[in-house]
Amino acid sequence: MTISLPLGFHSHVTNIGIKDSSADFTLVRAEGQCAAAGVFTQSRFAGPSVVVSRRHVANLRAHAVVVISKNANVANGSVGMDDAMEVVEGVANALGCATEDVLIASTGVIGRRYPMDRVRAGLMNLPNNPHDVDALAVARGIMTTDTVPKVAEANAGSARVVGVAKGVGMIEPNMATLITLMFTDAAVDGADLDRMFRRVIDKTFNCVSIDTDTSTSDTAIVMASGAAGPVDLEALESAMYEVALSLTKQVARDGEGAEKLIEVCVDQARDEHQAKTIAKSIVNSPLVKTAIHGADPNWGRVAMAIGKCHEFTDVSEDRVIIRFGTQEVFPTPLGDSDLRALSDYMKGEDVRIHVSLGTGTTSATVWGCDLSDGYVRINADYTT
Amino acid sequence: MTISLPLGFHSHVTNIGIKDSSADFTLVRAEGQCAAAGVFTQSRFAGPSVVVSRRHVANLRAHAVVVISKNANVANGSVGMDDAMEVVEGVANALGCATEDVLIASTGVIGRRYPMDRVRAGLMNLPNNPHDVDALAVARGIMTTDTVPKVAEANAGSARVVGVAKGVGMIEPNMATLITLMFTDAAVDGADLDRMFRRVIDKTFNCVSIDTDTSTSDTAIVMASGAAGPVDLEALESAMYEVALSLTKQVARDGEGAEKLIEVCVDQARDEHQAKTIAKSIVNSPLVKTAIHGADPNWGRVAMAIGKCHEFTDVSEDRVIIRFGTQEVFPTPLGDSDLRALSDYMKGEDVRIHVSLGTGTTSATVWGCDLSDGYVRINADYTT
Repeated sequence: MTISLPLGFHSHVTNIGIKDSSADFTLVRAEGQCAAAGVFTQSRFAGPSVVVSRRHVANLRAHAVVVISKNANVANGSVGMDDAMEVVEGVANALGCATEDVLIASTGVIGRRYPMDRVRAGLMNLPNNPHDVDALAVARGIMTTDTVPKVAEANAGSARVVGVAKGVGMIEPNMATLITLMFTDAAVDGADLDRMFRRVIDKTFNCVSIDTDTSTSDTAIVMASGAAGPVDLEALESAMYEVALSLTKQVARDGEGAEKLIEVCVDQARDEHQAKTIAKSIVNSPLVKTAIHGADPNWGRVAMAIGKCHEFTDVSEDRVIIRFGTQEVFPTPLGDSDLRALSDYMKGEDVRIHVSLGTGTTSATVWGCDLSDGYVRINADYTT
Repeated sequence: MTISLPLGFHSHVTNIGIKDSSADFTLVRAEGQCAAAGVFTQSRFAGPSVVVSRRHVANLRAHAVVVISKNANVANGSVGMDDAMEVVEGVANALGCATEDVLIASTGVIGRRYPMDRVRAGLMNLPNNPHDVDALAVARGIMTTDTVPKVAEANAGSARVVGVAKGVGMIEPNMATLITLMFTDAAVDGADLDRMFRRVIDKTFNCVSIDTDTSTSDTAIVMASGAAGPVDLEALESAMYEVALSLTKQVARDGEGAEKLIEVCVDQARDEHQAKTIAKSIVNSPLVKTAIHGADPNWGRVAMAIGKCHEFTDVSEDRVIIRFGTQEVFPTPLGDSDLRALSDYMKGEDVRIHVSLGTGTTSATVWGCDLSDGYVRINADYTT
């Protein structure tokens, strides 16, 4: 599979020795300043990359985005900020653009400085006319412990939307996401792009959770080169949604140790807040996640996860319906042979839980993954 | 170890065949109606046992408490309520007391009816003058998947306080607890007992979390026989606190798959809500829990767990101090040899994380356990 970036974007992916010999330095640039937007983590420990990018994209314009992977550059005090600024200044010098037009994202271990001697050597060696790489290589360049690169594309009239994402753990973005970069050659005003991007992220990356842990580094950036000319905005938003939804599911499916994608749909809710809160309570419950890992149709745990959202006093056991796939499991009880059939369904790679609350007409869908001993093994020995 | 119940209480523990041949029916009774209080789950799927006990203890009086283990009798519709009432009526008949003076608690699998033929046989066979069993046997009688019985005792003047608890999973009580039964022979007014019990539970069982999942069956009951006469109320509350704290730590240490007790203290907080929210965010983080399981001094994950509580805009990286045990790890960075020493500390059975926020003068302490592949194995195959 080769997916080129949209018209008007150029890319450079290389190894500068952050941790090992895999790609760890990724640069995507437009041919000049172009429309851009960003959504970032709300963590109180947000890293310098987030602080700098938030400031640099505030004018809804950017020229390039640089991603350093395998080191988050978080919780390093003022030297961390100095290091981040040195990276964006080095990139700006190499491209001959303003420092304020360079965005930066970084994920990996927290509390360690970049190896700045190697970073400086990498910045000195940036080629003037890099050989462009495809989106898959960009996706590989931003990976940390991901097992597969995550790429998606969609069309909007004459324009294309191409997105990449990374992230397998420390994932419950809250009004933000991990690192996802989206590029389009559509010509679109920065304010329109920003509005559409926020709506799309809210319905996709803000609805995924691997382990309830919100990263210090979540960054979602979109850039529009304009090279393909103007397109219908609805078609563009729809293409952006399609790309973001695909990347969201790819992230959930590649969750640390995950073997299954879990989709939870809650409908007949009073409002979106109720639907999303209860859906997230289900997809985040360690007991639901382990039951699905074991293909165990233990729907009582779904009832528990609904019940523990006790702030919703209008939710009543008498009106709730719970389904695994399309099979109702509550309130109509299942016989043993039906339970065995359900276990077969749950052995598949995709498990869907569908809950109707009976309190209204709103719905929400969220995504997550099962909790396996693999997750524990991966995370019990990470830094040392 | 033999710990008798306080004066004025009698106990009966037996097997009635709920699931296997282990003890599953526990009855503790006073010699007549006595002061009592209860705190219960706030789950919207609260089981009939909770509904019945909440109603029966509303007058702050009770004669007996019956516990059926290995079956929660939750999400069984109206027959579940009928079954629960049949149990308390059967006990009331055997004791010759009012049905309203019998409390009931039940935990185990959700969505299955009690085997009522066996329950009825058990109720018919209740001995008139049972041979009393000690508190350890009571604690064993209420166990489900606990690996050890949990008992604690303390003195208040001439009176004793003895408590038992069960629970290893589906544990993040919210203004309630799992099953814990506390007995004292102090003579105390029901209203005083209720007030003291709520304060004690709030500082102990409401501060423990195994896996963020709130049970449908959480029940905490205290009964005071009065047989030892009146005692100083402060001494009594202090003894109740000592018993509840010990039981809380025993529950955390016996968390499903747990190998370590984690204690998180957050101080210098703006108020108790801030201190407890951030402490729970740390103790509940799967990434912190797995790091501690692996004895990995990855303090960056603690920073992440603080940062994700983004509602506290007064919390700033510049003022936060993080310690593992007594060793500061942030902001003063540790060298590699110090990190190795810290890993040795983390290999112990007790790991303490101490965070100072620098936003005020309030503190909170919470308890939890590490996340192991054992937790996953236990929960991936439970009902089937």
